[in-house]
Amino acid sequence: MSSDINRSWRMTGFGLPRLELAEGRIPEPGPHDLLVRIKAISLNYKDRMIVDGVLIPDLGFPFVPTSDAVGEVVAVGGDVSRFRTGQRVLGHVIADWPDGDAPPVLHHHTLGSSLPGTLSDYLLLHEDAAVLAPPSLSDAEASTLPIAALTAWFAMAEATRPVPGQTILIQGTGGVSLFALQFAHAFGLRAIVTSSSDGKLEWAKTLGAWQVINYRARPAWDEAARELTGGAGVNHILEMVGGDNARRSLDALAADGRLSIIGLLGSMELSFPIVPFLRNRIVVQGISIGHRRAFERMNQAIEALAIKPVIDKIFGFDEVPRAFEHLEKGPFGKIVITTA
Amino acid sequence: MSSDINRSWRMTGFGLPRLELAEGRIPEPGPHDLLVRIKAISLNYKDRMIVDGVLIPDLGFPFVPTSDAVGEVVAVGGDVSRFRTGQRVLGHVIADWPDGDAPPVLHHHTLGSSLPGTLSDYLLLHEDAAVLAPPSLSDAEASTLPIAALTAWFAMAEATRPVPGQTILIQGTGGVSLFALQFAHAFGLRAIVTSSSDGKLEWAKTLGAWQVINYRARPAWDEAARELTGGAGVNHILEMVGGDNARRSLDALAADGRLSIIGLLGSMELSFPIVPFLRNRIVVQGISIGHRRAFERMNQAIEALAIKPVIDKIFGFDEVPRAFEHLEKGPFGKIVITTA
Amino acid sequence: MSSDINRSWRMTGFGLPRLELAEGRIPEPGPHDLLVRIKAISLNYKDRMIVDGVLIPDLGFPFVPTSDAVGEVVAVGGDVSRFRTGQRVLGHVIADWPDGDAPPVLHHHTLGSSLPGTLSDYLLLHEDAAVLAPPSLSDAEASTLPIAALTAWFAMAEATRPVPGQTILIQGTGGVSLFALQFAHAFGLRAIVTSSSDGKLEWAKTLGAWQVINYRARPAWDEAARELTGGAGVNHILEMVGGDNARRSLDALAADGRLSIIGLLGSMELSFPIVPFLRNRIVVQGISIGHRRAFERMNQAIEALAIKPVIDKIFGFDEVPRAFEHLEKGPFGKIVITTA
Amino acid sequence: MSSDINRSWRMTGFGLPRLELAEGRIPEPGPHDLLVRIKAISLNYKDRMIVDGVLIPDLGFPFVPTSDAVGEVVAVGGDVSRFRTGQRVLGHVIADWPDGDAPPVLHHHTLGSSLPGTLSDYLLLHEDAAVLAPPSLSDAEASTLPIAALTAWFAMAEATRPVPGQTILIQGTGGVSLFALQFAHAFGLRAIVTSSSDGKLEWAKTLGAWQVINYRARPAWDEAARELTGGAGVNHILEMVGGDNARRSLDALAADGRLSIIGLLGSMELSFPIVPFLRNRIVVQGISIGHRRAFERMNQAIEALAIKPVIDKIFGFDEVPRAFEHLEKGPFGKIVITTA
Repeated sequence: MSSDINRSWRMTGFGLPRLELAEGRIPEPGPHDLLVRIKAISLNYKDRMIVDGVLIPDLGFPFVPTSDAVGEVVAVGGDVSRFRTGQRVLGHVIADWPDGDAPPVLHHHTLGSSLPGTLSDYLLLHEDAAVLAPPSLSDAEASTLPIAALTAWFAMAEATRPVPGQTILIQGTGGVSLFALQFAHAFGLRAIVTSSSDGKLEWAKTLGAWQVINYRARPAWDEAARELTGGAGVNHILEMVGGDNARRSLDALAADGRLSIIGLLGSMELSFPIVPFLRNRIVVQGISIGHRRAFERMNQAIEALAIKPVIDKIFGFDEVPRAFEHLEKGPFGKIVITTA
Repeated sequence: MSSDINRSWRMTGFGLPRLELAEGRIPEPGPHDLLVRIKAISLNYKDRMIVDGVLIPDLGFPFVPTSDAVGEVVAVGGDVSRFRTGQRVLGHVIADWPDGDAPPVLHHHTLGSSLPGTLSDYLLLHEDAAVLAPPSLSDAEASTLPIAALTAWFAMAEATRPVPGQTILIQGTGGVSLFALQFAHAFGLRAIVTSSSDGKLEWAKTLGAWQVINYRARPAWDEAARELTGGAGVNHILEMVGGDNARRSLDALAADGRLSIIGLLGSMELSFPIVPFLRNRIVVQGISIGHRRAFERMNQAIEALAIKPVIDKIFGFDEVPRAFEHLEKGPFGKIVITTA
Repeated sequence: MSSDINRSWRMTGFGLPRLELAEGRIPEPGPHDLLVRIKAISLNYKDRMIVDGVLIPDLGFPFVPTSDAVGEVVAVGGDVSRFRTGQRVLGHVIADWPDGDAPPVLHHHTLGSSLPGTLSDYLLLHEDAAVLAPPSLSDAEASTLPIAALTAWFAMAEATRPVPGQTILIQGTGGVSLFALQFAHAFGLRAIVTSSSDGKLEWAKTLGAWQVINYRARPAWDEAARELTGGAGVNHILEMVGGDNARRSLDALAADGRLSIIGLLGSMELSFPIVPFLRNRIVVQGISIGHRRAFERMNQAIEALAIKPVIDKIFGFDEVPRAFEHLEKGPFGKIVITTA
Repeated sequence: MSSDINRSWRMTGFGLPRLELAEGRIPEPGPHDLLVRIKAISLNYKDRMIVDGVLIPDLGFPFVPTSDAVGEVVAVGGDVSRFRTGQRVLGHVIADWPDGDAPPVLHHHTLGSSLPGTLSDYLLLHEDAAVLAPPSLSDAEASTLPIAALTAWFAMAEATRPVPGQTILIQGTGGVSLFALQFAHAFGLRAIVTSSSDGKLEWAKTLGAWQVINYRARPAWDEAARELTGGAGVNHILEMVGGDNARRSLDALAADGRLSIIGLLGSMELSFPIVPFLRNRIVVQGISIGHRRAFERMNQAIEALAIKPVIDKIFGFDEVPRAFEHLEKGPFGKIVITTA
């Protein structure tokens, strides 16, 4: 890699075949920008949905996809005060959400969506849209944090008050779910993990799952969850599927239970019976990644708790299409692309 | 009324014709009981659903229905310390919920449901399941508080943090809705009220509604609500209907908006699209009346704010069947039965 | 006033005699700056402490004091997206606190402290450090909000959950206290106001005080407050004095009571006995103005609640030293300086 | 021990020599009482202050002291529904605080204070003032929970929102402090422990302390704490001493830091400078043990987290005076008395 060429994967249309490697110039930082030499990028399922044209049908081309990246600050604009060259930073995906409530929806500045993505050698980040990477993590590990880890953290530690000793049910073993499992274990929560694969459930146990349910063997996983909790029900469920699955989630919840809506993997609808909703005083909350302050708190926790992200496979920068294909195979852990 | 006869309306089966007036003995208070001479009873829509066999199909007969009542303590058990004779008290409907989280569902002791109801001359209340009535209210007014007012209060002041200046949309003009409107006005919230009746909407304005929407004239009331808020959406909606109406509620909510699920008047299902749920970080919460501490706080607020419950009509104790029939007519305000 | 001259009052040293009127050039906005033509400035007591050298002993000269200002955006930098020319804005005093937790202390960018103040014809504001002024207020009224109103709002509606019907005790009738009184009235709180002046207490009643205490006539004002609350104590107290006065505040608080520490008018020390602190589970919280999101919420509430700031006197721009002198006289309401 | 004799240690006046062993009858349970055969009692420092006449100068004699106890339910009153004979229960010390806010102070029913204490073979507990003991703990271990563990839990998990990765400073190695240290470790918090003894600090490390400070070697322990946190300060401090020590706590706190006031070991006064209080938006909260719901949640966490209370020494029932004397020696862990 030469220092004055900026390689990028650009969508020239929808579909993986139209994702093309191109070379361009290294961008110039504005007064408050960081020029970041990217070291590693992590894929999320929504990246595939964007490449395939499912999530943002009116995207303009060419477009550089992906949102997760870690890199080194190699230059800064004249007014930058939060960072200096040489620091290792992560991009903050919802760039205009520093803390508290989110900005009004239409003004979202989101990496890899309304803003260009991260699948390049170089990236400009506004200094307000970056955080220091946790020093204990490798580049590949750090790259996995911006969406999957922050979503799990926000659902479990910001939008919900974690009460050690309580139960949490985590659906599946995707990127958010594995971080949720690691956080649950570190927070003193009892995690129940569901999957259709006994092998993945075994791995989940090694990551700290308290109990596991194979929903293929036990389709009424809500009843199984209730049994595991002595009939009381689960205190918090991370809903990754939607549709009728959410009805089971409702059935599995304890009184004053909480359901965090996270996933886009299944149905685009949620449907609940009202009576148990009222009787158990259920709270359902929609989660959309998180704010920068939460990202900073999470990174501090990752250091304190010595959490290591689970990586399924690392690909080279010229293997990006294969990396996207691998994403379809239901990996156990994150898929990472390095620029080295 | 003789002092040693206890008249009660008892269900001897389902259906209004099987609600019969009977006479019995005045019950003896146990060590922690209050014997209350009931002065006024208020009807809730769920009382009709119980009488008709819709809500509790396995009810045992005979059964005294209704939950709301105010009366005077005329005798106390030997160990009672919270009250003394002569005080005017309201029964607390979820009798074993003093504060904080509710007790596990199956152990609920609920007046007019798992416990006998209030449609009698005399009632025993455990001293832990009663609160002082607000002195500024008449008996008829005070009798309306235990379910309708406390549900509105709990949704707006306990389960939600009220932020003066924010908007709240209140569906309809039933008992909970009118209290919600009065509280909204007194809390500095901007209340939007929906109804199919222009006449009721006019009355709502006199109670402090900021804006009104006739959803018959404007079926897309969610769009109307969004327009009234300059496109931002509503901060809090009290959902009284369910079903597809809840989809409109979701559409009408602002970013970080909140939907309180309260009603049993319409569908028994809730159904939402996931994308706006995630994007706007919506919170949906089920409300089931409230705890005793909230009841006490509400009564203090009713005094401080000089709130007067809206009463549609007062019936005599021998007119109970007519009072239930009147409930079907869509009254504007509560229906009260006096024992005098 | 000519359009190309920028008048400013500048401290050339400590003490009011060294506050001098000077003329300079109109500053040029940077890419994210608003150039604001100031219409009105409001004084706070801490402005006098800065002019006198009490609050920031190591201030560099020349220095333009004061923090509160309202004005019209007359030009914007090339990258500004939040505002446009012609809008009327208020400067947000802690410029780098958008929402949630505050930034680390040493990085504070504070108008009239680490940043230049507002006592000029023209001011540059970063677009992230401004909010729209409430349209219902005059320039003079709007200018009073950034410190006094936001401090009261933050203590009462952000750092504390307001519960209508509860009691709040407000010490004195200074700028923060009068806004607190108006908010209390509008939120459905019962406000007790203390003062040494019967005349001011009468005015406080016209602003909605529920009860008043003249602490000169009744030095044990804590006992008086307890009596007014039927022995229960006050739920929230705004502490403006410190020192031994805070001990009385502690004595006047109810169980689970809250004390907001706001003022710098009296002692620089707080001192409490431990036993009642523990027994009543008291919470004491330090308040430092507030974040921008709170400012926006407050302005929305001011519109909804039709709150009009209380102004004691308006001075011309050439009368600034007299305005500072007037501040010493214990005005009832804010002191405003207009640039017209 | 014969089954029909009830041994008790009774204060016949103030001072340890007037604590005398007596025999009496086994009490009869009222309708809602549990008769508990006590297995183990744990001492708290306040028990010594009561025996010595320091804490409750107007105590009536004879009086059975101590508050912590575990035992077996051997009989129940006729109306008891929450427990059955054979279950192992812990007494809940503030007997009338089930959840949420505490009851008004003067009505407190507190074991070993306004109610008789636990230093007996048999004890009556109202069924609402008991919780199941965690099954994984021995009798001696379980007996230590009601005051020391619940106080630490309430300060860290109920009155404060625990954020994994944040720092907590725990003063000393008394009973509350050791539980706090174990909870901190299990919650993912970084615990800094202070002590004057290097030996105790070594033990603290084996219980999971992240850092330790010997305040004899480093009297300016606040500066040491600030250094350990890279200058940012500590997020939460458990104040066990009061007086000038609380000033150091304030200095050691980070922005938005929190100080929980717990201890009665040192001064009876708290004293703070106002400026850092305001600037850092400090919250100080008084802690008084906790409510029953918190006790239940804590016991669930103790099971999930496999926490084992630290016991310094176990004494026989006839060795009570020696146990009280041992309390003065600064033990590392709780002192327990068994009735066996």
